Amino acid sequence: MHHLLLIAHGSRRQESTDEIHSLVEHIRERADNRYATVECAFLELTEPSIDTAIARSVEDGATRITLLPYFLTDGNHVANDIPAIYQCAVDRFPDTQIELRPYFGSAPAVADLLLELSLS
Amino acid sequence: MHHLLLIAHGSRRQESTDEIHSLVEHIRERADNRYATVECAFLELTEPSIDTAIARSVEDGATRITLLPYFLTDGNHVANDIPAIYQCAVDRFPDTQIELRPYFGSAPAVADLLLELSLS
Repeated sequence: MHHLLLIAHGSRRQESTDEIHSLVEHIRERADNRYATVECAFLELTEPSIDTAIARSVEDGATRITLLPYFLTDGNHVANDIPAIYQCAVDRFPDTQIELRPYFGSAPAVADLLLELSLS
Repeated sequence: MHHLLLIAHGSRRQESTDEIHSLVEHIRERADNRYATVECAFLELTEPSIDTAIARSVEDGATRITLLPYFLTDGNHVANDIPAIYQCAVDRFPDTQIELRPYFGSAPAVADLLLELSLS
């Protein structure tokens, strides 16, 4: 059973949290066959934390969990904070296959989309 | 003379700053006819600040400056901090047409790109 967790920064603003929930819904509706479930988790300010979301997935029977960081650049959160939380989860749940995907902003298509928006 | 400023968060990590400079270069190389120049500016931690970059553009003779916020969600930075800095610039430079574009993450194509990455 394969779970996807979209990892976002978190915010004090409900509008920001709502956007992440909408993205999760967008993926969930279109990726049904690929993942048993799609959920979100937050680095700070918003619940659930990444720790909590991973533990919940394991409790729910996930045998594989994919973490997809929704971040734009290779700053401290991407380079240090998220890998540290990921490594703790790997150590804590050795029977679950947990993988950390490259962050969103590293996709080449992001630069092209930004170019397109700059010209629109 | 129309200038584009890509507005990023800023980071203590050079790798993050380098990515923003690469994006600016990506846009600059492909949007030459649209803008007299393309530069970046940062909300915090990295120079130049948005204030400084706007003032430089005005000094360099920009008659129109477009701000494109490279942010993912409608959090405090997008909803409050950037509009406040923008409004100060509009008041400070009444003879320059300054416009604030929607933030990157609000583009519908972003959700589809994230979906695509989740399935790859």
